[in-house]
Amino acid sequence: MNFLELIKIRQSVRKYSDKNVETEKIEKCIEAARLAPSASNAQPWKFIVVNNPELKNKIANDTFSTVVPFNKFTLQAPVIIVVTIEKPNVMSMIGSRLKNKEYKLIDIGIATEHFCLQATELGLGTCILGWFNENKIKKILNIPKKKTIGVLITLGYPCNEYIIRDKKRKNTDEIRTYNKY
Amino acid sequence: MNFLELIKIRQSVRKYSDKNVETEKIEKCIEAARLAPSASNAQPWKFIVVNNPELKNKIANDTFSTVVPFNKFTLQAPVIIVVTIEKPNVMSMIGSRLKNKEYKLIDIGIATEHFCLQATELGLGTCILGWFNENKIKKILNIPKKKTIGVLITLGYPCNEYIIRDKKRKNTDEIRTYNKY
Repeated sequence: MNFLELIKIRQSVRKYSDKNVETEKIEKCIEAARLAPSASNAQPWKFIVVNNPELKNKIANDTFSTVVPFNKFTLQAPVIIVVTIEKPNVMSMIGSRLKNKEYKLIDIGIATEHFCLQATELGLGTCILGWFNENKIKKILNIPKKKTIGVLITLGYPCNEYIIRDKKRKNTDEIRTYNKY
Repeated sequence: MNFLELIKIRQSVRKYSDKNVETEKIEKCIEAARLAPSASNAQPWKFIVVNNPELKNKIANDTFSTVVPFNKFTLQAPVIIVVTIEKPNVMSMIGSRLKNKEYKLIDIGIATEHFCLQATELGLGTCILGWFNENKIKKILNIPKKKTIGVLITLGYPCNEYIIRDKKRKNTDEIRTYNKY
């Protein structure tokens, strides 16, 4: 499978089978994330793999509410990865301050996507979540108060009837120009 | 080549040959970026491909200074991509405000890495730059004042003697835990 084929079958999976995810597959996804590039090689991330069913459900319950119910599918996923944002190194911090750019978030995006693309290649489904009750999840996992959670990633085998959807994206002409804005 | 192999040969390339990059290869990298996922499918990005040599050199000259000379290699790269951060859609904006998370930057990271991984598969080299004179580059390319540049990406064929370096990364145990922080 070439890279473009991999991208095309990578999609947000919101229906999971109850099959468990093998630890070696989780570790391969972590390895893909670990090798991700980052500003000044700061690697400002930690990945907490939550695969204890009880604990996972506690986390899942903090990704939706009666008002915002669209993440309820997280209860189905056998694994949730909590990605924390860690202190970058001095070089990256100086750069971020001087340039007023949160490089850490760009880095988190890259590493998270490495994880998800590797999962896709292994036949696993993922969904990146930005919507969750951060303080509750930090308490559950004893994450220090000062730390921030970047994203959550659900992980599991897609349910059998899962199909690859066509991607709805802007046209190339809307997002790419040559030599001018 | 599987995904982990692709990741391992993807590296920051800072020495380029003077061979031009074929437009169809640039377009394939853009396609990989275009298909990237984003928060609420906002796709908050534009890619300005700067491959006019004169214009490209103007941009390159705004990525380093006598005080910060480490980006001087950009003069060698035949192409520089300027990635602007565009307004996300309403859903993503509401989410960002409520959750105090700049999803846009995570999105920019993901799309940028799609671009770079596709380039790697095509035998091209890239380097993501966070350090540049944003205002000068905006003026050169007539980018509206209100817009922000996320990153620049250099693109070109690596020079012949380029070797794949071992990646220096934290150990897995430093970045991954199970069911606790």
